[in-house]
Amino acid sequence: MQEIKVTLTKNPKKKPADESKLGFGSIFTDHMFVMNYDEGQGWHDPRIVPYGPIELDPAAMCLHYGQEVFEGMKAYKTADGRALLFRPEKNMARLNRSNERLCIPLVDEAFCVEALKKLVGIEKDWIPTAEGTSLYLRPFIFAVDPQVGVHPAKHLMFLIICSPVGAYYPEGLNPVKIYVEKNYVRAVRGGLGFAKTAANYAASLKAQDEAEEQSYTQVLWLDGVERRYIEEVGTMNVFFRIGDEIVTPALQGSILPGITRMSCIELLRSWGYQVTERKLAIDELYEAYQKGQLKEAFGSGTAAVISPIGQLKWGDEIMMINNGEIGEVSQKLYDNLTGIQWGKLPDTMGWTVEVK
Amino acid sequence: MQEIKVTLTKNPKKKPADESKLGFGSIFTDHMFVMNYDEGQGWHDPRIVPYGPIELDPAAMCLHYGQEVFEGMKAYKTADGRALLFRPEKNMARLNRSNERLCIPLVDEAFCVEALKKLVGIEKDWIPTAEGTSLYLRPFIFAVDPQVGVHPAKHLMFLIICSPVGAYYPEGLNPVKIYVEKNYVRAVRGGLGFAKTAANYAASLKAQDEAEEQSYTQVLWLDGVERRYIEEVGTMNVFFRIGDEIVTPALQGSILPGITRMSCIELLRSWGYQVTERKLAIDELYEAYQKGQLKEAFGSGTAAVISPIGQLKWGDEIMMINNGEIGEVSQKLYDNLTGIQWGKLPDTMGWTVEVK
Repeated sequence: MQEIKVTLTKNPKKKPADESKLGFGSIFTDHMFVMNYDEGQGWHDPRIVPYGPIELDPAAMCLHYGQEVFEGMKAYKTADGRALLFRPEKNMARLNRSNERLCIPLVDEAFCVEALKKLVGIEKDWIPTAEGTSLYLRPFIFAVDPQVGVHPAKHLMFLIICSPVGAYYPEGLNPVKIYVEKNYVRAVRGGLGFAKTAANYAASLKAQDEAEEQSYTQVLWLDGVERRYIEEVGTMNVFFRIGDEIVTPALQGSILPGITRMSCIELLRSWGYQVTERKLAIDELYEAYQKGQLKEAFGSGTAAVISPIGQLKWGDEIMMINNGEIGEVSQKLYDNLTGIQWGKLPDTMGWTVEVK
Repeated sequence: MQEIKVTLTKNPKKKPADESKLGFGSIFTDHMFVMNYDEGQGWHDPRIVPYGPIELDPAAMCLHYGQEVFEGMKAYKTADGRALLFRPEKNMARLNRSNERLCIPLVDEAFCVEALKKLVGIEKDWIPTAEGTSLYLRPFIFAVDPQVGVHPAKHLMFLIICSPVGAYYPEGLNPVKIYVEKNYVRAVRGGLGFAKTAANYAASLKAQDEAEEQSYTQVLWLDGVERRYIEEVGTMNVFFRIGDEIVTPALQGSILPGITRMSCIELLRSWGYQVTERKLAIDELYEAYQKGQLKEAFGSGTAAVISPIGQLKWGDEIMMINNGEIGEVSQKLYDNLTGIQWGKLPDTMGWTVEVK
């Protein structure tokens, strides 16, 4: 395994004074992990250096053709001062699936988890401790060849940056209002939807913007072929409790295979719930709603963990779910996931990794 | 109109000695145009400065979420030493349509054409003169907010860089071999397909790579819904001469509205050809081929101008078009377009703009 060279900052930043006002992703820590890829050399020169600007040629491919992928994960501080990661190996495995789709050279997953641990170890004092706060970790890779022809890059950079964060949504665990998107499409099978890559987020901006103008927090995407099947919510996967079944859209290439999604399914099944991954049409959901069978809806994702959905707007129809209140399954998942993540509950699933 | 401040380089680069070996998009000139957008200020501080690296925060949105758009156009040197642009106002209008879709603040199109002319005026000696060469111009905009939440940026940069180029394809005007893509999808209606934005190029890399492995130059994309209707070829729009009709896929939101495409249609119609913009299924094309009605196929784009298609591979079927030779319509379009662009023919359409 390659040695990670460490250069510590001589000018440490002031840490945020008020952890209740962290927001999401605008404060960054003192250090970052950097590694380069150059054809013929592979991934090389892994290092931890002071956080600071990077220099790019204006022709760098990432500024033109979006050959870039990323991951999102968190480090949590326990009451007794330990730093925990949550299933980091799953993120690095997904990073490589994204890499494969975007023609980016694969990384050594185990090495990247070690790099992550080393970086979090150095930034341990940056992990906030107030309720619901954590250190968001952003590994990302982008193409830097100074070349305006459209070809897979031969030169790339891999960085990990860290940001102390509070809740992703201002609503916190309060139910959000979601708008079912009818005009715009996020991704289609055969495209990039399953990869955590720039294109999917670029495609989401306009719909998200229009939803916010109408006072909705996020959009619920429908599939790009029939414009009928539920895909995911903005930056989250989505679950519906219909009668005695908990339904989540199956992974068919156009939605993100969320680590939190996977963890919800595993937890729910361990508790005896019937969880079904399948195609779910928006009209089927509406029918269940009208029959009083739609009991709960929630999103899952690293940033928000669990975000209950209190209202869904589909054209002129408004579905008020569980009276706009947090449902029991949402609450139980949130309590258990955050309990494991912050070390408040025993990690019976073996999901956490301690940073020594 | 804002004043463009000019800072000339003190270290001019050596110009390429052998214009026959320019390739495409790897050499850049001495200067670039830069302009910033900051919320509250609008687009400001337009300037021409020495070409050089830009500094970005590692959290800059363009490295994560692909909020970036671009244009591609060329400046041509005439035999009598004049510098010509080709329909630059159309590129800037398209740039704004891309901006609108990507939640990027619109630019002043007329001002951007002036900026382009000023930059090309300064770089006039960089326009190569050998047959088929030109100065490729790349206006592009990218989001720079140092923020990892997914929201439209409030801080962006607009640059124009210039690159002396030869032919885009090593084949030149020789017919290329194209592979009909069955697994991957470039874009779908409701998505970003009509915008000139990173996402579409990121989505194309894998298919392009696999096509090249099989010795094909580019892929022909089919629509993402029925996987049946012809969309475009790699980095070009596409035309087919079927019987007495010239067919090109209609603009329905998922393909790029090419300036060269538009110019081909206008030229062809001015010559009395019947040009139809409509849906064209790959099976319909194959049927026409089997009946001997498929007489010509070619791609159109700024980079390659006209690129005849000599062979199309669709699954196990190989369509040899016009015996793998340049067709008469392809040749006539190429001669006339390049004739107008390089000032060899009278500009009867009023398409060229001289840089004084």
